Amino acid sequence: MEKDRVRISALLDLYGAALPARQRDVLDLYYNDDLSLAEIAEDTGITRQGVRSALLKGEAFLSGMEESLGFFAKGQRIRSAAEEIARAADAAGDEGLARLSARLLAEI
Amino acid sequence: MEKDRVRISALLDLYGAALPARQRDVLDLYYNDDLSLAEIAEDTGITRQGVRSALLKGEAFLSGMEESLGFFAKGQRIRSAAEEIARAADAAGDEGLARLSARLLAEI
Repeated sequence: MEKDRVRISALLDLYGAALPARQRDVLDLYYNDDLSLAEIAEDTGITRQGVRSALLKGEAFLSGMEESLGFFAKGQRIRSAAEEIARAADAAGDEGLARLSARLLAEI
Repeated sequence: MEKDRVRISALLDLYGAALPARQRDVLDLYYNDDLSLAEIAEDTGITRQGVRSALLKGEAFLSGMEESLGFFAKGQRIRSAAEEIARAADAAGDEGLARLSARLLAEI
C-alpha cells in the first residue's frame, strides 16, 4: 500500500499536468499532503463521494498513461544507467565525468 | 515545414500510444509513411475530409501533450547530457565508461 502511494505520487509528478485540474488537486492533497478524504472534502467543498470518485478516476488515468507511454519505467532505466556511470566516474577519480553525471542525474 | 514534420513524427513516437487508434494510424501514414491525404483516404476508407480532421486533431493532441508534459524537451536535455558524457569518456580513453554511456544513450 505504501509502495502504491509512492508509485502514484511519482506518476502524479510525471503525468499530473495532463489531468483535469480537480482530479489533480484531489490527488495532490491525498498523496502529497497526506490529507484524509474527509479533510479534502472540507477543504475543497467537494462531497466526500466526489473526492473518492476523483481519486479513483485520477488514479486510473495515471495508471493508463504509464501503461501506454511508460515514461516512469523508462526514467527508472535511464536513472539506473546514469547512476552506474556516476559510480564508475567516482571510482576512476574522474572529476569532470562525475560532474557531468551529476548534471545528467539532475535532468532525469 | 520539414522541421515540423520531424517534430510531429518524434511526438508521435513519444505520445502516440495515448492517441485514439484512428488518429494514430492516420498520423503514422502521413508522417512516417509519407502518404498523401488522398492515399490515406483510399487506404483507410475514411473520407478525405475525415483524414484531414483526424490529422488536425491528432497534431493538436500531440502538441498539447508536449506542452503539458514536456517529455520531448526533457529527452533532448537528457540526450545532450549523455552525449557529453560519452564524448568525455572517449576523450579519457575509458572503455568501461564509454560502454556505459552507449548503454545509457540506447535507453533514451
